[in-house]
Amino acid sequence: MKLFTRAFWSVELAEVAMANITKKVSWSSRTDESGVASEGTPLLNGAEQPRHSRQLSGGGSIFQIGRLSTVDLEEEITTEEDSLRGRLKEIPHNEKLLSLKYESLDYDNIENQLFLEEERRMSFMSFRCLEISRWVICGLIGFLTGLIACFIDIVVEQLAGIKYQVIKENIVKFTEVGGLSISLILWAVLNSSFVMVGAIMVAFFEPIAAGSGIPQIKCYLNGVKIPRVVRLKTLLVKVCGVICSVVGGLAVGKEGPMIHSGAVVAAGVSQGRSTSLKRDFKIFEYFRRDTEKRDFVSAGAAAGVSAAFGAPVGGVLFSLEEGASFWNQMLTWRIFFASMISTFTLNFFLSIYHNKPGDLSNPGLINFGRFESESMEYNLYEIPLFIAMGAVGGLLGALFNVLNYWLTIFRIRYVHRPCLQVMEAMLVAAVTATVAFTMIYFSDDCQPLGPDHTEEYPLQLFCADGEYNSMATAFFNTPERSVRSLFHNQPGTYNPLTLGVFTLTYFFLACWTYGLSVSAGVFIPSLLIGAAWGRLCGILLASITSTGSTWADPGKYALIGAAAQLGGIVRMTLSLTVIMVEATGNVTYGLPIMLVLMTAKIVGDYFQEGLYDIHIKLQSVPFLHWDAPATSHWLTAREVMSSPVTCLNRIEKVGTIVDTLSNTSTNHNGFPVVVRVSDNDEPAKLCGLILRSQLIVLLKHKVFVELAQSRLTQRKLQLKDFRDAYPRFPPIQSIHVSQDERECMMDLTEFMNTTPYTVPQETSLPRVFKLFRALGLRHLVVVEDNRVVGLVTRKDLARYHQGRHGLEELQLAQT
Amino acid sequence: MKLFTRAFWSVELAEVAMANITKKVSWSSRTDESGVASEGTPLLNGAEQPRHSRQLSGGGSIFQIGRLSTVDLEEEITTEEDSLRGRLKEIPHNEKLLSLKYESLDYDNIENQLFLEEERRMSFMSFRCLEISRWVICGLIGFLTGLIACFIDIVVEQLAGIKYQVIKENIVKFTEVGGLSISLILWAVLNSSFVMVGAIMVAFFEPIAAGSGIPQIKCYLNGVKIPRVVRLKTLLVKVCGVICSVVGGLAVGKEGPMIHSGAVVAAGVSQGRSTSLKRDFKIFEYFRRDTEKRDFVSAGAAAGVSAAFGAPVGGVLFSLEEGASFWNQMLTWRIFFASMISTFTLNFFLSIYHNKPGDLSNPGLINFGRFESESMEYNLYEIPLFIAMGAVGGLLGALFNVLNYWLTIFRIRYVHRPCLQVMEAMLVAAVTATVAFTMIYFSDDCQPLGPDHTEEYPLQLFCADGEYNSMATAFFNTPERSVRSLFHNQPGTYNPLTLGVFTLTYFFLACWTYGLSVSAGVFIPSLLIGAAWGRLCGILLASITSTGSTWADPGKYALIGAAAQLGGIVRMTLSLTVIMVEATGNVTYGLPIMLVLMTAKIVGDYFQEGLYDIHIKLQSVPFLHWDAPATSHWLTAREVMSSPVTCLNRIEKVGTIVDTLSNTSTNHNGFPVVVRVSDNDEPAKLCGLILRSQLIVLLKHKVFVELAQSRLTQRKLQLKDFRDAYPRFPPIQSIHVSQDERECMMDLTEFMNTTPYTVPQETSLPRVFKLFRALGLRHLVVVEDNRVVGLVTRKDLARYHQGRHGLEELQLAQT
Repeated sequence: MKLFTRAFWSVELAEVAMANITKKVSWSSRTDESGVASEGTPLLNGAEQPRHSRQLSGGGSIFQIGRLSTVDLEEEITTEEDSLRGRLKEIPHNEKLLSLKYESLDYDNIENQLFLEEERRMSFMSFRCLEISRWVICGLIGFLTGLIACFIDIVVEQLAGIKYQVIKENIVKFTEVGGLSISLILWAVLNSSFVMVGAIMVAFFEPIAAGSGIPQIKCYLNGVKIPRVVRLKTLLVKVCGVICSVVGGLAVGKEGPMIHSGAVVAAGVSQGRSTSLKRDFKIFEYFRRDTEKRDFVSAGAAAGVSAAFGAPVGGVLFSLEEGASFWNQMLTWRIFFASMISTFTLNFFLSIYHNKPGDLSNPGLINFGRFESESMEYNLYEIPLFIAMGAVGGLLGALFNVLNYWLTIFRIRYVHRPCLQVMEAMLVAAVTATVAFTMIYFSDDCQPLGPDHTEEYPLQLFCADGEYNSMATAFFNTPERSVRSLFHNQPGTYNPLTLGVFTLTYFFLACWTYGLSVSAGVFIPSLLIGAAWGRLCGILLASITSTGSTWADPGKYALIGAAAQLGGIVRMTLSLTVIMVEATGNVTYGLPIMLVLMTAKIVGDYFQEGLYDIHIKLQSVPFLHWDAPATSHWLTAREVMSSPVTCLNRIEKVGTIVDTLSNTSTNHNGFPVVVRVSDNDEPAKLCGLILRSQLIVLLKHKVFVELAQSRLTQRKLQLKDFRDAYPRFPPIQSIHVSQDERECMMDLTEFMNTTPYTVPQETSLPRVFKLFRALGLRHLVVVEDNRVVGLVTRKDLARYHQGRHGLEELQLAQT
Repeated sequence: MKLFTRAFWSVELAEVAMANITKKVSWSSRTDESGVASEGTPLLNGAEQPRHSRQLSGGGSIFQIGRLSTVDLEEEITTEEDSLRGRLKEIPHNEKLLSLKYESLDYDNIENQLFLEEERRMSFMSFRCLEISRWVICGLIGFLTGLIACFIDIVVEQLAGIKYQVIKENIVKFTEVGGLSISLILWAVLNSSFVMVGAIMVAFFEPIAAGSGIPQIKCYLNGVKIPRVVRLKTLLVKVCGVICSVVGGLAVGKEGPMIHSGAVVAAGVSQGRSTSLKRDFKIFEYFRRDTEKRDFVSAGAAAGVSAAFGAPVGGVLFSLEEGASFWNQMLTWRIFFASMISTFTLNFFLSIYHNKPGDLSNPGLINFGRFESESMEYNLYEIPLFIAMGAVGGLLGALFNVLNYWLTIFRIRYVHRPCLQVMEAMLVAAVTATVAFTMIYFSDDCQPLGPDHTEEYPLQLFCADGEYNSMATAFFNTPERSVRSLFHNQPGTYNPLTLGVFTLTYFFLACWTYGLSVSAGVFIPSLLIGAAWGRLCGILLASITSTGSTWADPGKYALIGAAAQLGGIVRMTLSLTVIMVEATGNVTYGLPIMLVLMTAKIVGDYFQEGLYDIHIKLQSVPFLHWDAPATSHWLTAREVMSSPVTCLNRIEKVGTIVDTLSNTSTNHNGFPVVVRVSDNDEPAKLCGLILRSQLIVLLKHKVFVELAQSRLTQRKLQLKDFRDAYPRFPPIQSIHVSQDERECMMDLTEFMNTTPYTVPQETSLPRVFKLFRALGLRHLVVVEDNRVVGLVTRKDLARYHQGRHGLEELQLAQT
């Protein structure tokens, strides 16, 4: 039977993936290592047992197999694991796995008695004040994000200015006397040393700060807790790291990291304290929970986009596209406000820096410059050309992603030690400098110096006096400036060969660079590659048709190419259109940019996912998409739920609670609370849900029935106690419970969420999924006549995905 | 006790409102009339009984009063109704009521066995095809909406051209010979006759087509079924009506109605048939349910905005701001696509019409013209000025809304007969013409004719040769052109007195016009008023400071004023910013426009709600806002739910079903289905939920257990049968059930939704609200240990709102 063959094949893949599990994963390399060390060998759910492989086809019958809980699996699999590991080491495929190490966030309010009492005590005025403080926080987030962007921009500009000046003088010197190889070495060494500093910080101090941070923020907004992603230390490393990598001349941008920076700022400001600095300002305590924090992080991400591209609306849309599931008007306005303030702050300070105080018309870190409407008009017959360019962008983007995917797998397997990562980054920096130098050296594309000197560091090299080397404007420059000159320089500034060679080399350099242990974004390199081949297209078209005027501006094609390439790589549509339109400052190009981005997405998606999604998958993050897979109506809550579930009684023995929490196999982090009606053996009724973190706080404060009775003075536990412990709840091991205390009882009534959402067993997967996604749930209790029969968590839903051959199921791994 | 005083006061208000209930309400005047006729006298829930008034205060204790079902109330109140009606006729306040006449829409899929079977039968390819057809439909929606916009634009331009040409010739003739009163009469008669045609169509044929249609579309997207809002006839009347009212020279725009038109097109195209034309194309049958239809209507509304303002992104944001609760990425992209195609189509055809084929750079019905970046730069010290203008806009907007609110109440009470409505519309048209003529006549603001002739119909009147009357550019012109000339004409084109007088008169004219029985929008008049006083501000500022260059362009202030005024009236923030930015074609002004709109909203909200919200409230529509009122944590599902609920057995007697459906007091339109465990008197267990519409279809097809057993050939009921009946399910009265058949049994198992969402009684109102809103529910079953204890519907939630003095509760009225 064909279906079975495929099922076996999928098991094979899963087995193959085994090889990869113990390898370090760059996002959170250090926890992984310790995790693997303490828990022994990683587990694989369902390997080698065909009955565990539940690959389903939408068209046929359904495999109804009871779900094995991880407890059983652990025993079954550890025995076979050694032989497995020996046999299967070919291709690591850990995007076929789903990691169990990520916790979820609670984006649904925990409505327990304490919470309701507090809400009821609050007057309308208090809610007003809360609302106002939300606005204040958003304003602060925007302001600080703008400041950070401003800081990065100024520092990068200063350092890069010094660097290019030094190298330029050196080149000028050695062009005359010969021995340009010394200049090359100087350039390579300067680049490598900057990059080394950045890479060391990232690799040794905070690996989570690597890359653009966009995949991590996507996960956070989606509801997955990525450890240390919104910490102060991450922000510091990120900011310094991005300065180093941009100044180090890597093929990177400083825009992507702004999004991460904004998110960290938001998470910090909104909590009114810093755990790292051990400072608690005793403000904004109400916001110390996941729901509120997420809202602010959305605003922070939007403020980041807004500062990076001068695109406040684009920022809002980015946050919504990536994060929000339930669209709330007030929240959107606050996000908008944060974005607005962020652009404004950046603009204001940059205008002072540029000695044009008060001129707010040039927003954003990357500024595409002014597109004059007259030269940029387009005509109907150009639309098919734009669409074709979109398709090319999609193809090139898919190629980029495939290459980067292989590279990332290679890195996961072989380049996982921090020192190796630093060395790789330095190597890339040196190679980038060498390639750039070689290109410039062998280029004979000399252009007359324009009267307006748009080139910041024109290199004369072997050109005649009054001319400069055209290749150098592309390579010997910060990428932002290169993009701008590709958009705006006069027709004829670049010759086609220069552009072609530049595209080719920069494409591979950028691809190699993304995923290094440095903080850096992929937006600008993508734009640069696209602008280069787009301009090339424009020049070629002009030479073919030679009709003059309408084709005269290759800058137009550079813009379209940039959009196509960026769209092909990251695959955002709506927000990217708005970002591009806002960055160009010209709405006229809205329509072609949209068309191009959509084409790029459709073409690209045919081959490979977007870059961020690839990296999320490679981390085996249980990421929930917008909808359940199309053909998943076959599945019901009964099949997807975890069962049996560890339940607690409403008044439970402390010992039982401690044991439950200490048992790593009950890893749901949430426990249904039940109450027994009578002594007969019918299952107990559901009466609430309590989280692991709440139990930890209760244990820490020793909220035991007996103590409350004996010590009359014992303070009643308040919401504040939970908020103080949030978000870094201590592990159960750190809480000492004596043998006597183990015999005490704990009353959970006040603390449990008394009205958890429930579904009956027959509920179809899409319905469960919708409920889960729309409400931002973490646990969904499956009941049969109000008796707990199972629990659905994020992992149970994220496991299913629509593969090319019908519904596929990812394996769960304890990695 | 103060609380009780207020409670009584609120009852007084409710009683006062009685006076108004029998009056016709313009949205759906004819159903109202018939409704009142058939059901006798209207009912008021809770009038005169202080114990029914449940005004709650957030800070104190809670009134726990059991909810009276409408059945009881009907009897109690009808007896007192006559005396009530005699006594209370002072101020109608029907925004303090909540009408029970509106049905809700099912924005949650009905997952019954039939549906699941169909979904399971479908392969991945079928889902692909469905997805593709969704895109095709969105493309069609965009295309048709664009065509309609194009049609309206061309017809209006032609007709208005003829009209103004005729009048101009007449004025020119009579300026020389004297007797300009004949010109005035000609103008007034021409205007009135155009408006008469439009008003007759609207008042006699389709009252729902009155106004801009935006409040209605808001309600539809919110989940309230407004009768006939998306019918073909409505579209026809709307299109003709808007042409007539714009050509008739009313202070209206053709932009608002585009949104309604787009929505109707979407509802029509997506269903693949026209019930009015009795044509079924047998396509898109899968989309014949509320969930899918709503998605397309969102796309249609977005396409309408996009066509009206050339703002595709603004359109998407409008749809999201007004409609969507659950943000879905794929849906957003489709909406975006529809918007894009719509602008594109409009542009393409208009470019052909304007003899510039293929020039797509000037999108939208209203085109703000090209704002040159150089002249439009702004500086930091202008920001406070902009904010002050925003505040003025908010104040003026609130004044506009308050005046319009009084006027609407007056209209509801006294101008409810169609012929009166037509006469009022004609009167307004004549007055508009007279006022305009008088203004032009007495104005001595003569300006030299520019070399570029931006004025379409320059009136010389008493001006010297080579000059024209400046007042005439504002009044003797379509409003779109007037807006454009206010934005772009050279400084000095208008003198301040002209602008001041124009603002004043146009403000009152526009206010009087909105709410007439004609199809017309309020966007353009708002922009025009704002542009006029904005330009005035600019001129005054320039004369005060006289620093020359920076203040030189009053067009900048006109733009800001327009934004402020529009924001003050309609109070949209995010979408309006984007719409304005896209319409100006210049991103530079994004930040000031945002600030202005936010200020206008904050200031305006202090005094009065937005115009659309006022009209929605005056119709007593059960509109659900984004969040539950802040201080509603006091309430739980137990207090808000309707109880007792009519339940049906899984296998139910036909007679019982018919009786249940015939009983108008069980107006929930949905019935929990229960199954009895044993014969003891413990309440039955919930096992599903079935809708009134489903039962109607079942009865119509006589799906009885006995018939199925006797006639082996009886066709099994398919989803198709339900889809064919959608959305106009016949009333129960039209279905004949014989006495024998009444004794038959009906098995609901296959047709009921087996997994309705449930909540326990203790769930707080905000939690219930969130569930309801996020999932687009219509019925939420309240259970106690899986036994039905109540049902929460939209009206139960919409009743509560945050008043100035804490939580208030609206009264339910059977009107």
